[in-house]
Amino acid sequence: MAPEISNKMASLHGSMIRELFKLGADPNMISFGGGNPSAETFPVKEIEEIAAEVLTNDPISVLQYGLTEGYTPLRDTLKCYLAEKEGFDFEKNELFIVSGGQQGADLTTKVLVNEGDVVLTEEPAFVGCLNTFRSYGAKLVGIPMQMDGMDTEALESTLARLTASGEKVRFLYTIPSFQNPTGITTVLAKRKEVYRICQKYDIMILEDNPYGELRFAGSNVPTIKSMDTDGRVLYCGSFSKTMAPAFRIGFLVFDKSLINPITVAKQCTDVHSNVLFQYICNEYMTKYDWNAHLETSRNVYHHKASLMLEQMKLKFHPDVKFSTPEGGLFVMAFLPEGMDAYPFVREAINKGVLLVPGSAFLADPAGVSNGFRLNYSSPSDEKIVKGIDILGKLTYAWIQNHSVQ
Amino acid sequence: MAPEISNKMASLHGSMIRELFKLGADPNMISFGGGNPSAETFPVKEIEEIAAEVLTNDPISVLQYGLTEGYTPLRDTLKCYLAEKEGFDFEKNELFIVSGGQQGADLTTKVLVNEGDVVLTEEPAFVGCLNTFRSYGAKLVGIPMQMDGMDTEALESTLARLTASGEKVRFLYTIPSFQNPTGITTVLAKRKEVYRICQKYDIMILEDNPYGELRFAGSNVPTIKSMDTDGRVLYCGSFSKTMAPAFRIGFLVFDKSLINPITVAKQCTDVHSNVLFQYICNEYMTKYDWNAHLETSRNVYHHKASLMLEQMKLKFHPDVKFSTPEGGLFVMAFLPEGMDAYPFVREAINKGVLLVPGSAFLADPAGVSNGFRLNYSSPSDEKIVKGIDILGKLTYAWIQNHSVQ
Repeated sequence: MAPEISNKMASLHGSMIRELFKLGADPNMISFGGGNPSAETFPVKEIEEIAAEVLTNDPISVLQYGLTEGYTPLRDTLKCYLAEKEGFDFEKNELFIVSGGQQGADLTTKVLVNEGDVVLTEEPAFVGCLNTFRSYGAKLVGIPMQMDGMDTEALESTLARLTASGEKVRFLYTIPSFQNPTGITTVLAKRKEVYRICQKYDIMILEDNPYGELRFAGSNVPTIKSMDTDGRVLYCGSFSKTMAPAFRIGFLVFDKSLINPITVAKQCTDVHSNVLFQYICNEYMTKYDWNAHLETSRNVYHHKASLMLEQMKLKFHPDVKFSTPEGGLFVMAFLPEGMDAYPFVREAINKGVLLVPGSAFLADPAGVSNGFRLNYSSPSDEKIVKGIDILGKLTYAWIQNHSVQ
Repeated sequence: MAPEISNKMASLHGSMIRELFKLGADPNMISFGGGNPSAETFPVKEIEEIAAEVLTNDPISVLQYGLTEGYTPLRDTLKCYLAEKEGFDFEKNELFIVSGGQQGADLTTKVLVNEGDVVLTEEPAFVGCLNTFRSYGAKLVGIPMQMDGMDTEALESTLARLTASGEKVRFLYTIPSFQNPTGITTVLAKRKEVYRICQKYDIMILEDNPYGELRFAGSNVPTIKSMDTDGRVLYCGSFSKTMAPAFRIGFLVFDKSLINPITVAKQCTDVHSNVLFQYICNEYMTKYDWNAHLETSRNVYHHKASLMLEQMKLKFHPDVKFSTPEGGLFVMAFLPEGMDAYPFVREAINKGVLLVPGSAFLADPAGVSNGFRLNYSSPSDEKIVKGIDILGKLTYAWIQNHSVQ
């Protein structure tokens, strides 16, 4: 018996990145392919201390069933923090703890999307969430990224076209800061424009901000949620890059009118998120020096990003352009227009350097991209230098042999 | 702006039980309403030891991103354990770690069910999973429970009727051992019959076994999965009742042909389950005395169930029937046929005893039930005696005042 798979899942394939992740475990491979935060940023000693303290003094509080909406002290801490730092209005909004940022996207889609609805995404965009939207039968339509953020003219014309043809567009998915995969930050003027256009066409926005705390250059840009006057924006954050990914703890901020459906969606997905790590996040944010910890992490990423970018400038063929991330984990490089990066990435893997081709991040899985993503947070300095050297030579050979006539 | 909710979620309401759970936090309330395992069964000292050991010696291994399918040593341990104990065939089957048993049901439904498909469930059945099925737009059809398990004649006639009317029936959901909410165990002959009928009509089975390790009376009955010759059964287990619920660790066993869609479904739901607790489960199962631990837990539940049943026999009106659980956390009592238990439960809550009405567990949320669920794992012995005394008096008053003419 070969069981029949649901329509929405039958056409979906595993994330190319998660599969590459397995290749990346080969100790001889220089991996710029993954998306792991740097393990040296994890506050290991403090995690150990807090875990030992609560498991000794009040174990049942972190082992028994918890509340679906999350551990109340952590929710309160995050509300204060986000109200102060991002200007969020918790008179009108609610915050739930979710099992990593990915679940924020999953619950949002479950609650808002009917099969056949359109979800707009940046293009390229984080493939994990593209697959989430696909898993609910959404139709994906991509809005191109430019070096200063989403192409808002394309956003407006796409919405005009889709609306005219009777499509139901449900929400826009965006990572405005240090986007995965491009590393690009959408500038303030474009964020305002994004909000204005979504307001005009009355669509929701899912603002995903997993890297927001990791700004190491430039200056802070207000979130789209901070401009939200009419409950249009769901905002998703995560402790995966500020504490540790295996915590599986994130949070979702949303208009209070969504409390009931999001509660039910969370209940019937995983009941609640694990309580010990919610407790650890709260203790760490309130009793340790959260800002100093973030500053230390930012310094690690600043150093690694600077090293990789400097090496790319030195070694890459001058026709290969790339983003200049001011935070986060990724930089994206682009072969000359018209070239497909996929065979380039395969050749790089043959030469021992793991990359992810831009095509993995497209709304149309059969699409072609001239970009490839590089991660600088995981590899050692030595591997960054060596890997970029290999890639640099490859860019020269490749462009010479494959230049578009 | 009041955001529009997806069709599948718009009609869903929060679990009555999770709401009652909040009421149950009132220290003056005697709560037989929850479904919490007894906190005294949690192996707290060992959890603390294992967590301290790994967070000291190899922290990054449990803090960095893990594999979607789960922590390999735990998967291997569980495969050996289930092959030996339940006779599962891991040549043909695979096992993934999931974020609690609830996620096992969620992934199964995502992978198998299209909107409008029928899911068959025992009636009454665990409402958390009913809501999971509803959240994918499944139509629920209930198969009545009898004191020795599912009514297999009703199963066969229902399938005949649904098939004749062109309905697409996707799977049958069952908790064969110590069912939630009834506490009933489906006898072996009926399990074989369930498998035969599902084979005849070529439908899948989701066998949920969160309480299987908690048998404290009677003798073991083989799982339906152990009879599965053609990859028809997905089997879900959980550490929520054998370690601690806030671990959010369970496992799903399924035919290898489902590996790809279940991997993708898990990736786009929460990436992977938290690694520390997977590590703790594995260490505990392999380096401590797992069987002795289960035996201790079974003794706790045996004591509490015996006390509650003995008190119910003494105090309840003789026209109130109830199940005799041989394991698990619940017993279900039934007012005389034709009576609605809902107003009885409301009156019990007024008198300080929290129960869940049987109607919370029906495929049709507007249905009426003469049953109410009692949980014996959480309350103290003193509260069991006191609560049953209050309920006993209420059964006499109620039947006298409300007896069907």
